[in-house]
Amino acid sequence: MNRVYLDWNATAPLRPEAREAMLAATEIVGNPSSVHAEGRAAKSALERAREEIASALGAEGVDVIFTSGATEAAALVLQGRGLACAAVEHAAVTAWCDNSLQTEPSGRVIVPDPARAALQLANSETGVIQDLPQGLAASDLTQAFGKIAFAFNWLGIEAGFVSAHKLGGPRGIGALVVKRGTEVEARIRGGGQEQGRRAGTENLIGIMGFAAAAKAAQNDLDQGIGEKVSEIRDSLMAALESGAEMVTFPGRESRRLPNTLSILTPGWRGETQVMQMDLAGFAVSAGSACSSGKVRPSSVLTAMGIAPERAGDAIRVSIGPTTDPRDVQRFADAWLAARDRWRQRNDQRATAGRV
Amino acid sequence: MNRVYLDWNATAPLRPEAREAMLAATEIVGNPSSVHAEGRAAKSALERAREEIASALGAEGVDVIFTSGATEAAALVLQGRGLACAAVEHAAVTAWCDNSLQTEPSGRVIVPDPARAALQLANSETGVIQDLPQGLAASDLTQAFGKIAFAFNWLGIEAGFVSAHKLGGPRGIGALVVKRGTEVEARIRGGGQEQGRRAGTENLIGIMGFAAAAKAAQNDLDQGIGEKVSEIRDSLMAALESGAEMVTFPGRESRRLPNTLSILTPGWRGETQVMQMDLAGFAVSAGSACSSGKVRPSSVLTAMGIAPERAGDAIRVSIGPTTDPRDVQRFADAWLAARDRWRQRNDQRATAGRV
Repeated sequence: MNRVYLDWNATAPLRPEAREAMLAATEIVGNPSSVHAEGRAAKSALERAREEIASALGAEGVDVIFTSGATEAAALVLQGRGLACAAVEHAAVTAWCDNSLQTEPSGRVIVPDPARAALQLANSETGVIQDLPQGLAASDLTQAFGKIAFAFNWLGIEAGFVSAHKLGGPRGIGALVVKRGTEVEARIRGGGQEQGRRAGTENLIGIMGFAAAAKAAQNDLDQGIGEKVSEIRDSLMAALESGAEMVTFPGRESRRLPNTLSILTPGWRGETQVMQMDLAGFAVSAGSACSSGKVRPSSVLTAMGIAPERAGDAIRVSIGPTTDPRDVQRFADAWLAARDRWRQRNDQRATAGRV
Repeated sequence: MNRVYLDWNATAPLRPEAREAMLAATEIVGNPSSVHAEGRAAKSALERAREEIASALGAEGVDVIFTSGATEAAALVLQGRGLACAAVEHAAVTAWCDNSLQTEPSGRVIVPDPARAALQLANSETGVIQDLPQGLAASDLTQAFGKIAFAFNWLGIEAGFVSAHKLGGPRGIGALVVKRGTEVEARIRGGGQEQGRRAGTENLIGIMGFAAAAKAAQNDLDQGIGEKVSEIRDSLMAALESGAEMVTFPGRESRRLPNTLSILTPGWRGETQVMQMDLAGFAVSAGSACSSGKVRPSSVLTAMGIAPERAGDAIRVSIGPTTDPRDVQRFADAWLAARDRWRQRNDQRATAGRV
């Protein structure tokens, strides 16, 4: 049976444009720090990719510092600053922040002092999009980049960070974006790369894949992919809602990413649902993939006021530009059938209990 | 004209086996932290690659922690420990060490207290190989890995670090190797990857390329590539020595990597030589590529007792398994011709000065 991949927010399938660019990059021999022709060719490809990524981010004239991903970029910009953040942030952010900001039931985070706060643009589990306040110190743009249109230069924030693999680039490459000339103390030292802010020979194959994926994602957005994707997501929501009582969709009242749906069924454990759907051929997730494999109630949902004993009863479906609406319909059918079986077992247990 | 790449110690051309493995990796969709079938397939490929790299390193039963390269791995294991090291180390090491160990003119470093010291296995500029003392705290194995046979488990050291691109893997991936269960405080946080020692979604394409390259390099070594490569290097040394007076080869009296030759011609600037050779079609380097582009006298050569005003007069030729001996002969011819022109200009200047 064909598998159906509905976990794009964990990692997106590699775009063909990225694969092509990476293949081309395998032919570039030099170290970008070398002064000979091979080194200069590598350097030139590197800087071209940097400009393409800046352009896709709407961050022209801004410093793009390549890292091994958003997690490293978060550490680079957040460590030691004691910024405030909310529990809806990714663990790569909460690792360095004072976890004190309040989240409303809608998913909206209240930011009293933007200059001393970090706030994500979009949430990985619910898709909720934040209105970033002017002068915000840092924003995790990872889930938003490539899924909704925005321009770094218009957000009015000091720093942002992104990862390639969430928009169809390779895993293991990302970037920190800061206003030109911002002081950033290198955490990885011993080379002048990235203007002395991040040492180490550059991951040129990954970077060229990242640039190609970012460009392709922007083209998709320009051509209205967001509407197509949100239509598929919304018909899934409608199908599940009409077929099952009690199901809720955390964040549905808020502006959300077009591709993300959080589905909460009180009493039906998220990890059970993930396993049953996996056996039925569908890849979905319960919360963020980036944990240690331990199952904890989602801190995103509890921050939105959902009780801890219920916050483990959610799954996330996240789709992408190439998702086939018929596959999503098949998922809805399979999920509703599994839910009916779960309800029947529950009812039998309840009846047995009464006897 | 065909270019001849003789700068393998800066970065080696990607091995075909690595390219193949990376292509295969582009087909693996999942995030290794996801629990569904796609995630498990990615995890399984990741762990297979980890074992292959451990095996190539002779580090079975040891913890291999993937990083974005040796530079990050060095920061991970060295930062905050105040280990002693010598000036012959790479800047990624000296950035974190107390630069107090003495180097003999042969290139050999004296290590009074191995448990509080870091020492490279082989030097990037001269190729000089160190006898690592038992109980050494950490060793930069980057230039040695894949070029000479060694087993981490027999070195008697606590930790080592390597980079894929020096042995024909991709740039931007490397590893820290430590005895099983060694405590390593994560510098990049917010996920349980790498047993909680290094967060962030794994660079699976890079890692699979790394594993394939490491395996291929070990096969090459098993089949005696070292002798073939050192023969080519030694005939280059002989050709330059018989053709030019005054030329010396720092480290030649020591056990060296088979592929590396440091060539010092008093009075002829290294960067001038690199530019002239580049114009003639040959990629060589003056010192380490991993600097900020600034030209400084080589700290490796000054540590060996060469005067600072002479230490800038060296170039490094570094070759690899696929280097054609005829290309190296062509380099020798071109270098000797350039040297003759330089001598003649010098002589004319001297004559003009006398008139």
